[in-house]
Amino acid sequence: MSDDDRLARVTLSVVGEPGETRLLNLAADLGPRGLLDALHEQSEERDLFAAVSSRLAEVEPERELEQAARAGIRFVTPSDPEWPQQLGDLATAGALQARGGVPVGLWVKGPLPLTELAGSVAVVGSRSSTSYGERVAGDIAAVVGLAGRVTVSGGAFGIDYASHRGAVSTSSPTAAVLACGADRVYPAAHREMLTYLGREHAVVSEAPLGAAPHRVRFLARNRLIAALTRGTVVVEAAARSGALNTANWAQRLNRFVMGVPGPVTSACSVGIHHLIRTGGATLVTNGEDVLELVAKAGEHLAADPRGPEQARDVLSFTDRQVLDAVPVAVGAHVHSIAKVAGLADAEVRPILDRLEEQGFVEPDEGGWRLGVVART
Amino acid sequence: MSDDDRLARVTLSVVGEPGETRLLNLAADLGPRGLLDALHEQSEERDLFAAVSSRLAEVEPERELEQAARAGIRFVTPSDPEWPQQLGDLATAGALQARGGVPVGLWVKGPLPLTELAGSVAVVGSRSSTSYGERVAGDIAAVVGLAGRVTVSGGAFGIDYASHRGAVSTSSPTAAVLACGADRVYPAAHREMLTYLGREHAVVSEAPLGAAPHRVRFLARNRLIAALTRGTVVVEAAARSGALNTANWAQRLNRFVMGVPGPVTSACSVGIHHLIRTGGATLVTNGEDVLELVAKAGEHLAADPRGPEQARDVLSFTDRQVLDAVPVAVGAHVHSIAKVAGLADAEVRPILDRLEEQGFVEPDEGGWRLGVVART
Repeated sequence: MSDDDRLARVTLSVVGEPGETRLLNLAADLGPRGLLDALHEQSEERDLFAAVSSRLAEVEPERELEQAARAGIRFVTPSDPEWPQQLGDLATAGALQARGGVPVGLWVKGPLPLTELAGSVAVVGSRSSTSYGERVAGDIAAVVGLAGRVTVSGGAFGIDYASHRGAVSTSSPTAAVLACGADRVYPAAHREMLTYLGREHAVVSEAPLGAAPHRVRFLARNRLIAALTRGTVVVEAAARSGALNTANWAQRLNRFVMGVPGPVTSACSVGIHHLIRTGGATLVTNGEDVLELVAKAGEHLAADPRGPEQARDVLSFTDRQVLDAVPVAVGAHVHSIAKVAGLADAEVRPILDRLEEQGFVEPDEGGWRLGVVART
Repeated sequence: MSDDDRLARVTLSVVGEPGETRLLNLAADLGPRGLLDALHEQSEERDLFAAVSSRLAEVEPERELEQAARAGIRFVTPSDPEWPQQLGDLATAGALQARGGVPVGLWVKGPLPLTELAGSVAVVGSRSSTSYGERVAGDIAAVVGLAGRVTVSGGAFGIDYASHRGAVSTSSPTAAVLACGADRVYPAAHREMLTYLGREHAVVSEAPLGAAPHRVRFLARNRLIAALTRGTVVVEAAARSGALNTANWAQRLNRFVMGVPGPVTSACSVGIHHLIRTGGATLVTNGEDVLELVAKAGEHLAADPRGPEQARDVLSFTDRQVLDAVPVAVGAHVHSIAKVAGLADAEVRPILDRLEEQGFVEPDEGGWRLGVVART
């Protein structure tokens, strides 16, 4: 029965399209074997999926699994302990651009078990990124990795590449979720990286072996990146970037959506600024900000940004009150300083002497103005 | 009576400190003349403000007004038609760092009536700004000005200077609110600009003539910038920037608080990123974003960012469905493309021919892959 379920899922994975919502929803309702039976019979489903049904005869699921095994690829289904339970959220998340639903299974290459993706973070963004964006993406992945979390991305040029590389730079696990088959390489220039990830980490795809990187498959793939992770960080995204589609899915799935700002003069940041501005994403500036959001409440609290310690920080409250009342430009007399500080002249005089010794104030025009120490 | 009120206010302006909350609140409760009377008598108030009371005898309010008039400076009080009514919000906004309250009057130099500041926008930020921040500040002020709104800033180095200059670049009105007296110049290097603003626009101060730029006076001044304007835009702010104090006041006063993001690697943007991240400011990227917020609902709607028009935008829905199913890298056959698109082979064939003519697809390995037009 478990074997039969697995083989039925392999068949559906091969004949169906990744993220073909209606088919996946029917598979969930009838069970994979139930759906296949319906497609074989004279049924409503058979009429609805005529193209799919006509291809059923061509599929030999055992052979698909053998071929996959030879390529070092396993097929993970919901009955496997390795199945990432968080994908269940896709059952009720609806569809975007006609793509949605829980995948019938995932083709996986590499030693990283998918269960490790619980609590993982997606770092995605523009393919035509800037060196600024790549640096920030790499830093975020490195910090997320040091905190023991997997960085998930799409293996593409630009931000995706920088994210995987950033994780690897701290010997941290990282998974690439592809739009083509897990046995294929796209883009071709990333052969070396994807081979490395398939050997040391994980390369994941909903599409069967040999599947080409079709445009629609990127949309289906983006929903997986969002669903597998606890939050999605978009590093750079122009106005029509695919990364915004991933962010959209993350939002639908109640995952954290985070965006890294950039110069408002950079076209690469237009999409993410719009997302932050309209409340679609939380602004994050580094890995610590990301961890604060995705970690359990109270863990990984990011420190509030603080300026450098200032010399005046060591002064007593009254000393600071006096110092604050000393003019910046041209010296003022004790009387005037006392007035501004709201203190008596006699109280202020010895404090000014002390502040002068420490370099906080200096004599000017028979009075005092701010000294070198106070101006730094 | 109106004259007497004005003279009492001049006296309080000269003896009191800008934004000295307790004194200003008493002036509101007892009336300026009532407070002066109390300070002259044997009273609780006289004991509380001993330093202030002891200086009352020195002040000749008529002479102060004459001196001001000679310097081209007028004293504007709540009984003048020019009084900016929005300052009334300070009555209930409490205090920050012991500064707060409605000023007893404002010293103003320049032809711009303060009533014009209704609907104005504050553009403020770091003194040690970057050229990036200065450019963005100038652009925002220019656009705000072209929409007929006054840009308010603090006349300081960096972002303040760029804001005033940006407004002037489109011949738009701009007001500098100073921490020192309106007859003084601080910083000295801005003599030319402040002289120009005092002749063509407006230089405003709560502090009396001759008052030096004390540190606490900047805090009192920041509350005025926030209160005079409908919204505050912070362009660059390091972790301890005074601009964050202005933003804090704007928040308290239910004004719009807006922040311009920058590179997360820039120390000049740390403070503003924190403010956006924690919900203290709305991210804005240009003057249009600012106008959308501060304008009446429905006016100045900023267009959603759009990528450049793409060639595929002109295609019919079915044509696009087919095109989306064509692989990016290696050619696929009609049958495979039809499967991905969810259409019949016979339907797809003529569409592919048409798409090839238009350059959207190109022949590859006996099938089709994306063509030059679709890849741009």
